[in-house]
Amino acid sequence: MRILLVGAGAVGSAAREALTARGHEVIAAHRSSVDHPIDVTDPDSIQTVLDTVGSLDAVVSTAGTTPYAPWDDLDRDAWITGINSKLLGQVELVRRATGVVRAGGSFTLITGILAREPIRTGSVAAAVNGALEAWVVASAGELWGRYRINAVSPTVLTESLDKYADAFPGYPTVDASVVGQAFVRSVESMETGQIYRI
Amino acid sequence: MRILLVGAGAVGSAAREALTARGHEVIAAHRSSVDHPIDVTDPDSIQTVLDTVGSLDAVVSTAGTTPYAPWDDLDRDAWITGINSKLLGQVELVRRATGVVRAGGSFTLITGILAREPIRTGSVAAAVNGALEAWVVASAGELWGRYRINAVSPTVLTESLDKYADAFPGYPTVDASVVGQAFVRSVESMETGQIYRI
Repeated sequence: MRILLVGAGAVGSAAREALTARGHEVIAAHRSSVDHPIDVTDPDSIQTVLDTVGSLDAVVSTAGTTPYAPWDDLDRDAWITGINSKLLGQVELVRRATGVVRAGGSFTLITGILAREPIRTGSVAAAVNGALEAWVVASAGELWGRYRINAVSPTVLTESLDKYADAFPGYPTVDASVVGQAFVRSVESMETGQIYRI
Repeated sequence: MRILLVGAGAVGSAAREALTARGHEVIAAHRSSVDHPIDVTDPDSIQTVLDTVGSLDAVVSTAGTTPYAPWDDLDRDAWITGINSKLLGQVELVRRATGVVRAGGSFTLITGILAREPIRTGSVAAAVNGALEAWVVASAGELWGRYRINAVSPTVLTESLDKYADAFPGYPTVDASVVGQAFVRSVESMETGQIYRI
């Protein structure tokens, strides 16, 4: 299949490797891409990429960030930053991609464990992930017969634990390769409205 | 206890009745209130009410709305409208009320069944409710020892079914009096981080 992958980072790399290994053509768009630079906080930037890449069988997103800070320090500006990036960035990507992805194609988004098992400083991340997971379920219903949509919701990656050990004390980890397979499953299976909690 | 109730409507009335019946002093703030008019989309309006009411034991919110429309019609403006009202309205209320509610007091928010069992036209509502429920759990952790926080997440009210029967075909309903008791439980119990799915 011809798949647009939006987002870089450890999860983006895992998705790219797993999808490529399955023989898919992966078109990578991310902030610092030379061929397909994209800023998901900017709807025009999303539209430009979609106008450029041609027809698609699927869109996979590992895009968006949220601010991390103690609860009392996450003010309205911080909220709006997180909402505009990881929440509305991915929503806008899916909404606009319905004009580009073939009928019967799929969307796969990234959320994360904080939707269900929050950590200190992660209250905005929790909210954004919770919003996305509820939206994926709602969207699967309304897009029935047109598109499938799922989300991958991983715990901290084993390969990233050195960096995040203090944030995720004693949390189980998931190998990047397992995360990659969740994207493969979403793209190739018949499933929709699933949150892959891994 | 001295409780600020923000929000009117059927759920607000249910909360007010149940809390009053338990002997609490309920100070009602809502859009068309004469004594305490409030617009939760406007942080200054929230602050004005909080500056006026004096010390509180709890804040209860039944405030905020989200737009309902078919999936394809919910554009970025619709999203932002819903986010600014039911999501950021309630978040801002809680954040600012931490300066007014006594230590050990509580916050109780309103979410709704669409977070877990969506209906047609309710994709933004689903996302907003999902965000709030994840945030309540995260906030309970970070506010531990300072404040309790819970959410009431009802299905359609029995008393409102005439109006919403087509939107909630065959869904179970919940009596307004049961919803009112969930607010009482949140305010008077020792529970925190709970989503009362009723």
